[in-house]
Amino acid sequence: MTEAPSRSTRRQLLSRIGMVAGTAAMYQAMTRLGHAAGSDFTSPPNLSGGKGQSVVILGAGLAGMLAAYELRKAGYKVQILEYQNRSGGRNFTLRGGDRYTELGGGVIDVKFAAGNYVNPGPWRLPYHHHAILHYCREFGVALEPFQQFNMNTWLHSSTTFGGKPQRYRDYMSDFTGYTAELLSKAINQGKLDDPAGKEEREILLEAMRDWGALDRDYRYVKGLHASNRRGFDHEPGGGPDGAPTPSTPFSRDDVMKSGLWAWMAFHMNYEMQPTMFQPVGGMDMIGRGFARQVGDLVTHQAKVSKIAQDDHGVTVSWTDMAHGGATRTTKADFCVCTIPLSILTQMEVEVSDAMLAAIAAVPYASSVKLGLEFKRRFWEEDEAIYGGISFTDQGISQISYPSHGYFSKGPAVLLGGYMFGPAAYDFAGMTPEERVKHGLQQGAALHPQYLKEFSNGVGWAWSRVPWIEGCCGTWSEQARRDHYKTLTTMDRRIVLAGEHASYVGCWQEGALLSSISAVEQLHKRAQGAG
Amino acid sequence: MTEAPSRSTRRQLLSRIGMVAGTAAMYQAMTRLGHAAGSDFTSPPNLSGGKGQSVVILGAGLAGMLAAYELRKAGYKVQILEYQNRSGGRNFTLRGGDRYTELGGGVIDVKFAAGNYVNPGPWRLPYHHHAILHYCREFGVALEPFQQFNMNTWLHSSTTFGGKPQRYRDYMSDFTGYTAELLSKAINQGKLDDPAGKEEREILLEAMRDWGALDRDYRYVKGLHASNRRGFDHEPGGGPDGAPTPSTPFSRDDVMKSGLWAWMAFHMNYEMQPTMFQPVGGMDMIGRGFARQVGDLVTHQAKVSKIAQDDHGVTVSWTDMAHGGATRTTKADFCVCTIPLSILTQMEVEVSDAMLAAIAAVPYASSVKLGLEFKRRFWEEDEAIYGGISFTDQGISQISYPSHGYFSKGPAVLLGGYMFGPAAYDFAGMTPEERVKHGLQQGAALHPQYLKEFSNGVGWAWSRVPWIEGCCGTWSEQARRDHYKTLTTMDRRIVLAGEHASYVGCWQEGALLSSISAVEQLHKRAQGAG
Repeated sequence: MTEAPSRSTRRQLLSRIGMVAGTAAMYQAMTRLGHAAGSDFTSPPNLSGGKGQSVVILGAGLAGMLAAYELRKAGYKVQILEYQNRSGGRNFTLRGGDRYTELGGGVIDVKFAAGNYVNPGPWRLPYHHHAILHYCREFGVALEPFQQFNMNTWLHSSTTFGGKPQRYRDYMSDFTGYTAELLSKAINQGKLDDPAGKEEREILLEAMRDWGALDRDYRYVKGLHASNRRGFDHEPGGGPDGAPTPSTPFSRDDVMKSGLWAWMAFHMNYEMQPTMFQPVGGMDMIGRGFARQVGDLVTHQAKVSKIAQDDHGVTVSWTDMAHGGATRTTKADFCVCTIPLSILTQMEVEVSDAMLAAIAAVPYASSVKLGLEFKRRFWEEDEAIYGGISFTDQGISQISYPSHGYFSKGPAVLLGGYMFGPAAYDFAGMTPEERVKHGLQQGAALHPQYLKEFSNGVGWAWSRVPWIEGCCGTWSEQARRDHYKTLTTMDRRIVLAGEHASYVGCWQEGALLSSISAVEQLHKRAQGAG
Repeated sequence: MTEAPSRSTRRQLLSRIGMVAGTAAMYQAMTRLGHAAGSDFTSPPNLSGGKGQSVVILGAGLAGMLAAYELRKAGYKVQILEYQNRSGGRNFTLRGGDRYTELGGGVIDVKFAAGNYVNPGPWRLPYHHHAILHYCREFGVALEPFQQFNMNTWLHSSTTFGGKPQRYRDYMSDFTGYTAELLSKAINQGKLDDPAGKEEREILLEAMRDWGALDRDYRYVKGLHASNRRGFDHEPGGGPDGAPTPSTPFSRDDVMKSGLWAWMAFHMNYEMQPTMFQPVGGMDMIGRGFARQVGDLVTHQAKVSKIAQDDHGVTVSWTDMAHGGATRTTKADFCVCTIPLSILTQMEVEVSDAMLAAIAAVPYASSVKLGLEFKRRFWEEDEAIYGGISFTDQGISQISYPSHGYFSKGPAVLLGGYMFGPAAYDFAGMTPEERVKHGLQQGAALHPQYLKEFSNGVGWAWSRVPWIEGCCGTWSEQARRDHYKTLTTMDRRIVLAGEHASYVGCWQEGALLSSISAVEQLHKRAQGAG
């Protein structure tokens, strides 16, 4: 750098970098607010010695259906009340012919070709989400690999590299190379007081050279060595003219300034690590698997308005929307309530003041997903991208390519955007058609083929979904300290469950783990209650 | 470190590290001797305007079959002579009931359960091997993802971490963390003369903190932040007791000394990057796909002994092993010879002295693969390992878990070892049964379940395979400079093809690319020859 940039230019730059990193951070915010994404599941709950009491379960999402499954097995008399006309909750999938009206009156009209789909809610299963993998096995839900990590996808910063997207592998090679080169330099200049020992310095230099693809002098330079990571200008071939020519690394300045390192960090996250899975045919295959077990217990279109309890039991008041809006009450010995807190706050619930405060303490994140159908898999055919995710600093944040139907002809659907935070509010403020239009415009910066190959699309804004009005519960660390124990501890005859009642928030695994805790608490109470 | 180790201890340590790194390097040696692993394929060869001359092709591996396919399409009269009683060459798959006798008399007797297999040769397809992906599409060979990279597999150094295998994700987190911490320290101490500018220093610090999962003071420490990469002591759960507890990072000393960083570097290699594929049902589905196109042109059990040429054509002498060992000759206008150089050196071939020198200049690597069948998928059921590769500094070098049949019950086959260099010689020196026995003993250091769950296994030593006597051609840089152009340039009426005649050595892609170059040269010659 020949001239130091002015102070304000530097501030601008750092703020832009903060934005890229922020987008990456936002993406994980759901699981990062004082909690995590593993799973302590080891085996299904042991509910032996039950006395056959009755339980009303509110909500036929995964948490509610699992509670029903385990409680009925243990001899309880179970029924489920569900607001929607389908079971599964956020576990669902959009296919051609589906039609939903969102809050504000926008209509989601899905026109995908037969067999194509997008998952507006959960879309992948980490290898360490033992509970959901266990029940998929138990309920015969077929799984296939979800290609989370693909080194041939794009990283796009609108202000670096001339706004041109770059291959993940190129960027990763250069970031790794320059980092290793700098640390080697620090060690070789002998100025660093740590590591102190000659032995460790030698080992570190060896490590940096190998890991960073450095040359003998610990430099990261253009050549076949670096190209064996980032690819070649002329790729190797066969016959007399087969010799490859190396590609040229980016400048260190661009690599670091771009802030794209945030997306390298992203892939190291516990919940984003390979191997991941998805159900064959769409995420709702899991919901259907659960519904095969307990579907007979579900009353659909039951809009709960009040949950009361006394020494003798629980009384739930609800509107029977399937039968002219008749008002009904259901009585049971106990209640498992999986209604999202965003909705529960709008009901009358007879629990302790502390529990009411806990219910009100967890805001729900906004999130938007775009599903775009194109006439052909140009990302595979033109760009050799098979699954995985491209990232951009634009609102859409990412483009994820389907992990199924590889190499097939005909139309295919990709995830054209997945937004949290400000971008989610922006997109939720648009009509469904506008969301698709903006998604197309932004995505075209990564894939010029977008405009020519586009067929149709959907834009799903969770904040406009009537039965949840948000995506999932986002605990602050403070709220977690003040309210989590209360929220998750059974309140006389009522116990809550759902991803919000877990440390694996915003994941289906959290819903299942909370449900197991809930039925274990309920069972203990039921045995004590005699 | 309180005391500096003696000079000889340090040498021992560095030599051990060199060994780990060396094993990793060996693994790639095939593709690293002055060449690379991409592919310059863009489209099939254009052979228009052919005059219908005759071509004899030697070898019905992928190179030979592709040449036959493209030449017949262009109007040539083609026949293939193949030594084995099957087509496909190194593209093949071992299944229960298969039986092979190797050089030295050892018998490979495969006892896998129905549907199980191991690929002793090629076993995966990189996303950038455009030619083989193209022909898989064209010939209707179904592909599925090959899970190359799995962060939940094991890294094992027999002398570090008490000899206990460690999860890749733990090691990666700590290596990244400590590297970032050290570079941050160098920057913060202000002693490093590069980077010189305050702006770049600030950006670098930001990058290191984010990418290394450092705390506010740029330290890599035990906590939820690091555990969100390496996993938790108590994994997060649902309900009141759901709070996770962080895991403890390894010491920097152990991380660096172990030399296991070599396996992190490994996954960055161009030819090892996700997304990769494998044919559904075994690698030989590709060979069968090719054979569906040109199988009618192949004469099996034809043992070539001499390849002669003059101004009028090529004469191949061969023994017809299917018919009592009768001696036969085949004449054609041109010859595409795909016989491995290791075998070709043992024949009489009428080519220039320079070409003979080239044929003799390429040694063939030794390689051994073990296929082990176990009664159940304990790696999935007990350890949540779905596909991917574990690495060890023992002879077996690696254990790769199947990328198909995830979550299924019943017996399954894993790749219990893949050896090059010294270890390959060690294992090739054993009987097939001993190879399996040693593979089991070594593998048990990573998987104690090995001994209880073992069912049966095969040990395949390429140096003992009669039709190749090695694994693939390994060009030295010197040999490449001196002989490659000659080897790959048509010698009057004879042109060579095969992975050895490419810059994508030891990969099927190289065989195809060389074949395309060969038929293009042949076609040009044929047109000129009138």
